[in-house]
Amino acid sequence: MKQSIAIDMDDTVADTLSRHIEWYKEQFGVALDRNDMDGFRIYDVVSKENLGAVRNFPNEPEFFRDLPVLDNAVDVIRDLSSKYEIYFVSAAMEHPTSFSAKYEWLRKHFSFISDMNYIFCGHKGMLNCDYLIDDSSRHLDVFSGEGLLFDAPHNRNQEGYNRVDSWKHAAGIFA
Amino acid sequence: MKQSIAIDMDDTVADTLSRHIEWYKEQFGVALDRNDMDGFRIYDVVSKENLGAVRNFPNEPEFFRDLPVLDNAVDVIRDLSSKYEIYFVSAAMEHPTSFSAKYEWLRKHFSFISDMNYIFCGHKGMLNCDYLIDDSSRHLDVFSGEGLLFDAPHNRNQEGYNRVDSWKHAAGIFA
Repeated sequence: MKQSIAIDMDDTVADTLSRHIEWYKEQFGVALDRNDMDGFRIYDVVSKENLGAVRNFPNEPEFFRDLPVLDNAVDVIRDLSSKYEIYFVSAAMEHPTSFSAKYEWLRKHFSFISDMNYIFCGHKGMLNCDYLIDDSSRHLDVFSGEGLLFDAPHNRNQEGYNRVDSWKHAAGIFA
Repeated sequence: MKQSIAIDMDDTVADTLSRHIEWYKEQFGVALDRNDMDGFRIYDVVSKENLGAVRNFPNEPEFFRDLPVLDNAVDVIRDLSSKYEIYFVSAAMEHPTSFSAKYEWLRKHFSFISDMNYIFCGHKGMLNCDYLIDDSSRHLDVFSGEGLLFDAPHNRNQEGYNRVDSWKHAAGIFA
């Protein structure tokens, strides 16, 4: 039987940080620079009076609908899918209004992975997969298999995790 | 750590068969009797020319929105939740238009279970739970923990599974 890799969506294959920065500029006129965000989530760097609005961005279905795909994610995951059973696992319950947009996004960009392998959940501790690639260490902390922390500004200072720097790096790890 | 029980939605806690029978009568004027359906799914007993329409019923969000809860499911699962970690696990990817209705149905009837414990998926083979209660044997067949077949007309003749006859029966099993 193939080994299985569970892959997170937001900031692992879908570039949600860019969308946050784009909408923040549009709504508040402030250009945030992802290069200044090492160690911080978007919620840590916006001003207090705008925090509620920014937290609400992902509750808008339009937030997810046409998110850019992170570099090389499609080609590398297509290659991996020939050797591994691939699951997409999103903590979508945090934004229940996003279910359809997330589903459509996966169909559009990763149609070569069956939707029977999509998982919308809350906690990721109940996943029975061999690997989990995720930018959020809290999901890796409860995962029973081998976790890999996908690089993002907010996790750049976190230690004690096996790290994946990019999808090209992932291709090498699983080669 | 608590043991975990994954619980299916359709025909395990939500009475989808009654809704199928109700809509079939409304649309085609034929009253189906669940007592005549042992060993058969709804799709096996409707006439061929209506099969497409019946297969489409669950794609209507309204199909799920106000489904009845099966007898004693709420009280028993509330009790179980004090001793077990409860997850609701629905193969919702089969009907992507139903995500929101399913989510809202769970919030309405089982608000005592955190939505972080809802899982919308396709295959259930990737669940890392101790038990799975499900009316579909195909999900139990791929489940790595202990599966329990929840009684439904369509599975009544299936042998080789540990069976749960009702939610009162489930209360006794997990007492």
